[in-house]
This record gives sequence, structure tokens and C-alpha cells, in this order.
Amino acid sequence: MGARRADAERNIAAILEAGRRVLSADPGASVMQVAKEAGVGRVTLYGHFPSRESLVAAVVSHTVELAGTTLAGLDLDTPPAREALATLVRSSWDVLSQHSRLFLAADAALPAERLRERHAEPLGRVERLISRGRDEGAFRTDLPLTWLVSTFLAILHTAAGEVEAGRLAREEAGETLVRTLDALLSPPPAPPL
Amino acid sequence: MGARRADAERNIAAILEAGRRVLSADPGASVMQVAKEAGVGRVTLYGHFPSRESLVAAVVSHTVELAGTTLAGLDLDTPPAREALATLVRSSWDVLSQHSRLFLAADAALPAERLRERHAEPLGRVERLISRGRDEGAFRTDLPLTWLVSTFLAILHTAAGEVEAGRLAREEAGETLVRTLDALLSPPPAPPL
Repeated sequence: MGARRADAERNIAAILEAGRRVLSADPGASVMQVAKEAGVGRVTLYGHFPSRESLVAAVVSHTVELAGTTLAGLDLDTPPAREALATLVRSSWDVLSQHSRLFLAADAALPAERLRERHAEPLGRVERLISRGRDEGAFRTDLPLTWLVSTFLAILHTAAGEVEAGRLAREEAGETLVRTLDALLSPPPAPPL
Repeated sequence: MGARRADAERNIAAILEAGRRVLSADPGASVMQVAKEAGVGRVTLYGHFPSRESLVAAVVSHTVELAGTTLAGLDLDTPPAREALATLVRSSWDVLSQHSRLFLAADAALPAERLRERHAEPLGRVERLISRGRDEGAFRTDLPLTWLVSTFLAILHTAAGEVEAGRLAREEAGETLVRTLDALLSPPPAPPL
């Protein structure tokens, strides 16, 4: 029983990592391509992930978790909030950019709410930073915190889609995002309309 | 032949309008529910729209076209660009808010790029206004025009998703959007990071 469970865990780990690589190269890749890359059979894969949607959801979670390891190493608490935001945006984009095709696969396979659920951990990090910046007067307080967090995620994902569609140069996307999110979060530039 | 074509056109019009109503009430509604509401049979509906995806895409186009009639009546050329933007955002949200569930259906059924294609006409209107605002010095010029237009659409659609998810009050969404898009487009509030 212990050996069977260990086998199952090894297979799942191989499938998730294969899924990350295969779907990052080709967002339209089939479940069978992922099984082949993972070195497991069709029955084994479907035993763990009964549909393409459940596989893509799990691969997104796995990839977000990997990305979390990188982002957890950032010092977002010591620098002024605007600078910490720029650091977080640049690092988040670096990770997302490597997986922008996987993001397209997820966008096509998962409802927006399921994609959002998979980002609970990074969204928590974004929320804490925005909240600190609001307390310190660096960020706007006239819009709901939840709205600013959701818009942050949406703008990052928009950049991934724009790069893949050829409308934004990949090498410009990081700085474009820093400027866009700085504008989103800064106190309003002019009296309200 | 003329009569058959007239029949087909009447059926298509009935299906699109039924699709708009049914999917705006329930984004998970089936193709058969749309056929029933349109008063046409399954075979007739599938003859015009071979898949749920093609039906949803056509319903989105039809709805965007209807919305275009409202938005085309706005005077966006005379007022200062910031004011014209607020007018365009409020009216766009009014129309989108009535169809926020249809938007969820479209988001689940269509890849982001197909959803964007369906918005070519309103995106053209947004692009012209942003372009004029940039010429007049009211809007920022340090980010690509295409990026500002794409972000505009993404933020509007984010609001629809947030309202449907219960994270943003429907009656606050219009003014939240005006402030958010004003911040996005205004010249940068502070020196770049």
C-alpha cells in the first residue's frame, strides 16, 4: 500500500512537471502528449486527472507553487511600497513570461474564477503589499482593496496575452507593467471627474 | 430561394436575440434552451451554429453591435478627452453590466483572442479617443497605444467578473471604473521607478 502510494505520487509529480513543460511550449497540446512526456500511460494519467480541464488546473497550481518559491525570496517589507511593488511586478512578470503559453492554455480551459482560485497565494502577497502601501500613504485608498488586487492580476495576465498575440514586445512588457501598475495604485493624479 | 433565405435570416435573428436574453440570465444555459426561447428546432439551430462556441461567439457579436448603437450616440469628440473618457466608461459599463453574465458565458466558451475580435468596433472607438487625448497632452504617451486599449478592455471585463463573483458592488462599479481608467491613462503621477 505504501509502495503503491509512493508510485502514485511519483506519477503525479511527473505528470505535473511534464504538463508545465509541454503546455508552456504548446498551449493546445493534448493530454496524450503530456502523458508521453511524463512517461506514463493514458489510463494512469486519466486515473489521476479525469479531464483535460482538471489536468490544466493542476498544472497551473503546480506552476504557481513553483513561482511562489521564487517570489517568496523577495524582500517586499523593507523597501518603500512603490519600490517593493516594482520589484514584485518585475519578478512576477519574469515567471509569468516563461509560462505565457501555459497561461493561454489555462485561459482557454478554465473559467476565470477557477484560474483566480489557483492564484490565492500570490494574490495574498499582492494584497499585503498594497495594504501596507495604503497605510503608508503611498497607494490610493479611494478604491476597494479587492478591486486593486483583482485588477493587478488581470493586467499581468493581459500582458501575457498581448505578448503571445504579438501586440506587445516581450522585452518591453516588464517595464510597461511596472508603469501601468504604478499608475493604478498611486494616489489619484487629478481631482475626480 | 428568396423566401428560404428570408426564413433563414429571420431564424438567425431570433436565435441571436434569444441567445442574448437567455445567456444574460444564465451563462451556463444550453443550446437547447436558446433554441426553445427562439422558437426554432434543434436541427435549425445547429444548421446555423454547429457548436455552442460558434453560437456564443455570434451572440457576443450581436450584443456588441446592439451596444454599439448606444455608444455611437455619444459625443466623444467635443468635450475634453478626460471628460469624454468618463462618459465612454460610464456608458460602456451600463451596457456591459446588463450583459455581465453573457460575458461570463463568453469568457468560458471563447479564447480571449476570439472575444477580443468580437470587440473590434468598440475598441476602435476607445483607440480614437485615447489617441486624441495623447495628442492634446491629456493622456500618457510613454506606453504603447495598443497596450492602453487592451488594458481598457481587460479592466472593463474584470469589473464584470468581480460583480458576478460578488467582490464588487454593481452600483459602485461604474465610478470605480472611471477612476481606474483615469489613473491608467493620465500622464504618470511621479518620476518612473
